[in-house]
Amino acid sequence: MSALWWSQSAARPHEPVAEQARSRQAQLTKPPGSLGRLETLAIELATLQGQPNPLVDRVWISIFAADHGVVAEGVSAFPQSVTGEMLRNFVAGGAAINVLARELGASFELIDLGLAVPIEPLPGVRHLAIAPGTANLRCQPAMTEAQCEQALLAGRQVLLGAAGEGAHLFIGGEMGIGNTTAASALACALLDLPAERLVGPGTGLGAQGLANKARIVNEALSLHLPACSTPLDCLTRLGGLEIAALVGAFIAASQFGVPVLVDGFICSVAALCAIRMNPSCRDWLLFSHQGAEPGHGPVLAALDAEPLLSLGMRLGEGSGAALAVPLLRAACALHNQMATFSEAAISGGAR
Amino acid sequence: MSALWWSQSAARPHEPVAEQARSRQAQLTKPPGSLGRLETLAIELATLQGQPNPLVDRVWISIFAADHGVVAEGVSAFPQSVTGEMLRNFVAGGAAINVLARELGASFELIDLGLAVPIEPLPGVRHLAIAPGTANLRCQPAMTEAQCEQALLAGRQVLLGAAGEGAHLFIGGEMGIGNTTAASALACALLDLPAERLVGPGTGLGAQGLANKARIVNEALSLHLPACSTPLDCLTRLGGLEIAALVGAFIAASQFGVPVLVDGFICSVAALCAIRMNPSCRDWLLFSHQGAEPGHGPVLAALDAEPLLSLGMRLGEGSGAALAVPLLRAACALHNQMATFSEAAISGGAR
Repeated sequence: MSALWWSQSAARPHEPVAEQARSRQAQLTKPPGSLGRLETLAIELATLQGQPNPLVDRVWISIFAADHGVVAEGVSAFPQSVTGEMLRNFVAGGAAINVLARELGASFELIDLGLAVPIEPLPGVRHLAIAPGTANLRCQPAMTEAQCEQALLAGRQVLLGAAGEGAHLFIGGEMGIGNTTAASALACALLDLPAERLVGPGTGLGAQGLANKARIVNEALSLHLPACSTPLDCLTRLGGLEIAALVGAFIAASQFGVPVLVDGFICSVAALCAIRMNPSCRDWLLFSHQGAEPGHGPVLAALDAEPLLSLGMRLGEGSGAALAVPLLRAACALHNQMATFSEAAISGGAR
Repeated sequence: MSALWWSQSAARPHEPVAEQARSRQAQLTKPPGSLGRLETLAIELATLQGQPNPLVDRVWISIFAADHGVVAEGVSAFPQSVTGEMLRNFVAGGAAINVLARELGASFELIDLGLAVPIEPLPGVRHLAIAPGTANLRCQPAMTEAQCEQALLAGRQVLLGAAGEGAHLFIGGEMGIGNTTAASALACALLDLPAERLVGPGTGLGAQGLANKARIVNEALSLHLPACSTPLDCLTRLGGLEIAALVGAFIAASQFGVPVLVDGFICSVAALCAIRMNPSCRDWLLFSHQGAEPGHGPVLAALDAEPLLSLGMRLGEGSGAALAVPLLRAACALHNQMATFSEAAISGGAR
C-alpha cells in the first residue's frame, strides 16, 4: 500500500452507457425532461455503474465515530461522553440512522476511530483506537501525520469490504461531539474563508456559544494555516479522525467504482477535502441534501453540488443521505421499468 | 346527498395527539429539531390520523383522466388522442405512476371522466363519460353546472372507497392533454392574476406556443370572469372534469379524515379551488413537490404551502406525490421507532 494511494485515479465512468441511457430516457412514455432530476440521476448512475439498467438495491452505510479535543473550548451543546453513548445506541438499533437503514434494507457497520471517554468493546463495532480523540486544534495539530494516514486508510478498508460485497451505493455517516467545529475549520482553510462565513450552531449552540466557536476556529486558522501547504496538511491539523476516514472512504469509493451519496455538512466538507486531494473522485460523489448548518450552502456551492433534498436537517449519522436513497431507487425503477412510446403505441409529437 | 355536500366541515385534527407527538419528538435520541421537516411531518400526520404512532402504509392513488376542448386552440404539444392512449398505458402498467405505485405497494385506480377520442372499455377503469371532454373555454363555459357537480361527486365517490379501505394517505393524479391551460385559467381567476404570471410550457410548448396559450387564457378570463361570483363558478367555466374530480376528492378526503398528499401544478390548483370552496379542508392537504411549471410557485405561495421536494418535475399523474411518500414513511418510522434519551441512557444538556 503506497502512502500516496489516495492520489491514484478514480475509476472512469462508462461514457457509451451514458449515451444508451440518454437515448432510453428519450423513448419513455412521458414528455421529454418531465421527470426532471430523476432523469439525470438515472443517467448518472447508469454511467457510473456501467449498467444500462442502474440499481441501488445494495446500499452500504458505514458510520465513523471519533472524539474531538476542541470540545475543551466549550464548542458543543453536548458533553463528549455522548459520542460513545451514541455508539451504544447505534449498536442497540435506536438511533435515527438505524431506523432508516432498516427501512432501506441497507448493510450497516460502525467504526470507532478513537473516543475520549473509554467504553467497553461493543458487539459489531470495529474499535480502531487510533487516538483518544484528536488533540485540541486551537493549540496544536488535531492529528499527527501518522494518525491522519491511519484514519484515511480505515476509510479505504471500509470500501474494500463494501466493494467486495457488491455495494451499489456507499453512504458514510459520522458521529463525534465537536465535529462541526473541526469541519468548519477545515472548510475555512480549504476555501480561504473566515470562520464567520461557515460556523453554525451544530447540535444547538446559542448566540454566545456561536461567537465563541467562531473565535476558536479563527484562532486555529491563525495557528495552522502558515504550516498548511496541501489539503492533507489542512486535514491533519484541522480535521478529525472520522472526517479523515470519510475522506479516505470517498476517494477509495471512486477508485473501486462505487458511487457515493454524500450526507450533510461534515460529510460535504470531507468530500471537498477528498476532491482537493484527488480531483478525479468528483464524478463519483452525489449530494443528498442541504442541511440547516449555515456553512453547508457555501461548501455545496464550492463543490458545484445540487443536493436532492432540503429539509432543514442537521443530525448527521448519514441520515440525510439515507433519506434520499428512495429518490435514487425511484429514478432507477422509472428508467428500467417504464414503457417506451413505441411499446405503448402512443402518439408522439412536440410542436 | 345534498348538492352542497362540499360545504360541510372537514374532520377536526386531534389536538391532544399533537401534544403527545411533540413531547415524544423532544425525547428521541437527537438534538431537538435536528430532523427538520421530518419532525413536523410526523407530528402533523399523528394529529390528522389521531394516532400517536402515525402510519403511511396504505397509500391510495387515483388517477383522473379527461379531455379539454381548449386543445382546439393549439395549446398542447401533444394531440388529444394521447389522453386515451395514456389510459391504456396506465392499464398496461407502463407509465411512470405505475412504476412508482408498485414500488410503494399502493392501491391504484383509474377514473375516466370523459374523453374526446372514444376508446374501448378498459379493464379496471371506471368510464364515467360525463362529457366527451370539456367545451372550449375560450368561447364557452368548459362545463355545465350539472357536469361540474357530477365530476365533484365522482371525486367524493373515490374517497368513499379509499376511506372504506382504511387508506392512511390519498394521492390524486391527473391525465388530460390541455389541462395546464385549464388549470392556469382557473388559478388566474381564483388569484386575480393575468395569464402571463401563471402560464407555462406544460408538456413542452416553445415560446410561440406559450404566447398563444397566454392569449387564449386571457381571452377566456375576459369572457368568463364577469359571470364568476363563486369559486364553483370559476371551476365550472374554466376548469376541467378531472380538475373538478380532484377538487371533490380533496374536500371529501378532509371530511372523511384521510390526509392528502397533493401532486404538482394542476393538483395544487385543484387544492386552491377546494380551499376556496371549503376553507376547513386546508389542514388535510400536504404538499409534495414544487414542479417546473412556472405557475406552480405562485399557487403554492397563495396556499402558504412548503412542498417537500423540488426536482424540476412536470409530469403529473400523481408522480411527484408518489415520489414524496418515502419521506412521510421515514418521518413515521423515525417517530415511532427511535429510542428516547432515557431508553438509551444518553446524557442530555443543551447549554
